[in-house]
Amino acid sequence: MIYLTRRYDFSASHRLYNPDFSDEKNWAVFGKCNNPNGHGHNYELEITVKGQPDPRTGLIIDLAEFNQQVNSRIIDLLDHKDLNRDVSFMADQIPTSENIVIAIWNELVPYIPAPATLHKLRLMESRNNYAEYQGASLLR
Amino acid sequence: MIYLTRRYDFSASHRLYNPDFSDEKNWAVFGKCNNPNGHGHNYELEITVKGQPDPRTGLIIDLAEFNQQVNSRIIDLLDHKDLNRDVSFMADQIPTSENIVIAIWNELVPYIPAPATLHKLRLMESRNNYAEYQGASLLR
Amino acid sequence: MIYLTRRYDFSASHRLYNPDFSDEKNWAVFGKCNNPNGHGHNYELEITVKGQPDPRTGLIIDLAEFNQQVNSRIIDLLDHKDLNRDVSFMADQIPTSENIVIAIWNELVPYIPAPATLHKLRLMESRNNYAEYQGASLLR
Amino acid sequence: MIYLTRRYDFSASHRLYNPDFSDEKNWAVFGKCNNPNGHGHNYELEITVKGQPDPRTGLIIDLAEFNQQVNSRIIDLLDHKDLNRDVSFMADQIPTSENIVIAIWNELVPYIPAPATLHKLRLMESRNNYAEYQGASLLR
Amino acid sequence: MIYLTRRYDFSASHRLYNPDFSDEKNWAVFGKCNNPNGHGHNYELEITVKGQPDPRTGLIIDLAEFNQQVNSRIIDLLDHKDLNRDVSFMADQIPTSENIVIAIWNELVPYIPAPATLHKLRLMESRNNYAEYQGASLLR
Amino acid sequence: MIYLTRRYDFSASHRLYNPDFSDEKNWAVFGKCNNPNGHGHNYELEITVKGQPDPRTGLIIDLAEFNQQVNSRIIDLLDHKDLNRDVSFMADQIPTSENIVIAIWNELVPYIPAPATLHKLRLMESRNNYAEYQGASLLR
Repeated sequence: MIYLTRRYDFSASHRLYNPDFSDEKNWAVFGKCNNPNGHGHNYELEITVKGQPDPRTGLIIDLAEFNQQVNSRIIDLLDHKDLNRDVSFMADQIPTSENIVIAIWNELVPYIPAPATLHKLRLMESRNNYAEYQGASLLR
Repeated sequence: MIYLTRRYDFSASHRLYNPDFSDEKNWAVFGKCNNPNGHGHNYELEITVKGQPDPRTGLIIDLAEFNQQVNSRIIDLLDHKDLNRDVSFMADQIPTSENIVIAIWNELVPYIPAPATLHKLRLMESRNNYAEYQGASLLR
Repeated sequence: MIYLTRRYDFSASHRLYNPDFSDEKNWAVFGKCNNPNGHGHNYELEITVKGQPDPRTGLIIDLAEFNQQVNSRIIDLLDHKDLNRDVSFMADQIPTSENIVIAIWNELVPYIPAPATLHKLRLMESRNNYAEYQGASLLR
Repeated sequence: MIYLTRRYDFSASHRLYNPDFSDEKNWAVFGKCNNPNGHGHNYELEITVKGQPDPRTGLIIDLAEFNQQVNSRIIDLLDHKDLNRDVSFMADQIPTSENIVIAIWNELVPYIPAPATLHKLRLMESRNNYAEYQGASLLR
Repeated sequence: MIYLTRRYDFSASHRLYNPDFSDEKNWAVFGKCNNPNGHGHNYELEITVKGQPDPRTGLIIDLAEFNQQVNSRIIDLLDHKDLNRDVSFMADQIPTSENIVIAIWNELVPYIPAPATLHKLRLMESRNNYAEYQGASLLR
Repeated sequence: MIYLTRRYDFSASHRLYNPDFSDEKNWAVFGKCNNPNGHGHNYELEITVKGQPDPRTGLIIDLAEFNQQVNSRIIDLLDHKDLNRDVSFMADQIPTSENIVIAIWNELVPYIPAPATLHKLRLMESRNNYAEYQGASLLR
């Protein structure tokens, strides 16, 4: 098995808060990430797929198709957007790194070009903070 | 002369638009940076001061005082904030990198601990884009 | 399971040698890391915890408590210190990356805020060299 | 078990194409990587070995011997070379990241200084693209 | 004056040699960069323009036009190319960083969108090596 | 004029203190950098030379000679050393970034291979802190 990882960038804003919490509780739980007008990040998304290299090409994936799927289904929907208000697949979710990376997995997993399969996602919110997820591939 | 540079991070959201422009003109000028709900960045600010090392300390600046001034007057006001709505010294300005770096200069220049003086600011909006400014020190 | 990683910095000095070895053997085994007066590094520590996001917060960990534990039990004891002489939990150990990362695990593992658990540590001594450890969680 | 990773750099050129494909098919599969005169990269190779630290040294590997093996068997043969024409262990292979990382594994695995063993290789072709491989250690 | 810098990537191969030199002299002058089949790099190009922010936009340059000029006149001609054989504006020049950065300046300087002007170019061949040039703007 | 920069790494330990100060004053001025047993850094040194490319080579400097001078006169004397005790050209100086970069300039300036001349030094103590110096070239 070979694991191939490609990195993508997007810039987005978000605010962490739970509308069911009091203001006090929101500040206690989320700290400055609860600032009412939001803040933002240069996110980096690393997508790892696994497979066997095709002996005719030495590649495990059709990169043109892969990039087209990632950009149209994920990056174009997140880049230069507000994660609380602009992204339908994040609706009604608190946009923590944890929740974003799970949501991206669920959006992307059916569209990885066969025979490769999705192995892992890493979402870096900043140089000091990242979340990783290896979800089920059952949706395939 | 020795030039000493210190780097600071802040995460913020912004939206580029001019309320005097039509929607069409805002999109033509600012592109996706005009997204109505904003987006965000992990900004990096490099502050360069210049001076002669004090022969008793080998330092050109009192770092504790410098950090205190930078954090209280700049970073605490920008970090985890919306640059369009939360920052009084950016009021009525379009928060481009160019305008932000000039505004930071004007806020910071009177408070650099003597005998060092402010030499240059670099504001990195992302790995691919940064603005630099060397303003007047006359305010001193 | 979500894996969340946070990065911390500390600057420290160390010297690699075994007092039971001859000088010749110390140089043969440790090379220039055996320099008698020591040398130093900007270390980076990546701490990975795992858990399920709390559905009310989208978070797997109380970050304020986590940071407080990491800083008071690890970073404050290592930053701007000599790893051979200043760190009680490294006493009588050769401060290789391998030994430091195991010692940090043992110090930190009882204090990860539940229900998250410690998953992995990565200690980068330089851009070209890092050690990783996944120890037992039995101490919990 | 401790995992120790060391990073190495090499600069090389390559061209992706299959001589059994038509020109049209080569362009369709490999895109601009099929440019007839080739192109190049600053590759980064991360080599991860695993083992138990020797209680007398705190090390899992004899670093001098390790560096000597990696440099003489891998880096010296790849650095400032054309991967299609200059590297005997890549002969008759399409120099994709996938194929290069497998070939490096097979060259390196017999020469890791015992008792450490080779655990993983990561080959970064650029900041946005890397391949990882964990092959068999049976050759030992 | 504000200085705005944008970073671009391209991957290319090259070989350093002077056809008027003997083989021995080529090796003596260029070392391993003289390898007959060439080698390659992930180049980074930083382009710095200067100007006054337009008070209506806060910008010193029309970024869409700027990117279009840089990509069509420079990056598309260099990316995934052989600098010795594929680039007409490098014909009959030894593709050192020094010569490449001067050639890029001459190609780019007439096309910077007014009223901004080209200020400086930095070409990074690797993390350890870069060339900078501030040529004349007379061509404008 | 072309400016060529090459980057070098060294790891060293140091302690900031002035023996003429009281303990209290040393802590007040130098903070945790005054820790008695010292601490350390992975320093990065960027050396910028300027010159005209030789039309026969496209180079402004003989890189083999340059590297030999930098390594033997600077890097070999600083790497894996204690800057307070092991470096003769730092004797009786407080090893701040400011003082180190001036001392390196004075050591290096007579040995830059002509016709290139030394233009600037940048010494990075960490990702967040660097000193730059452009001294006189009179020693030549």
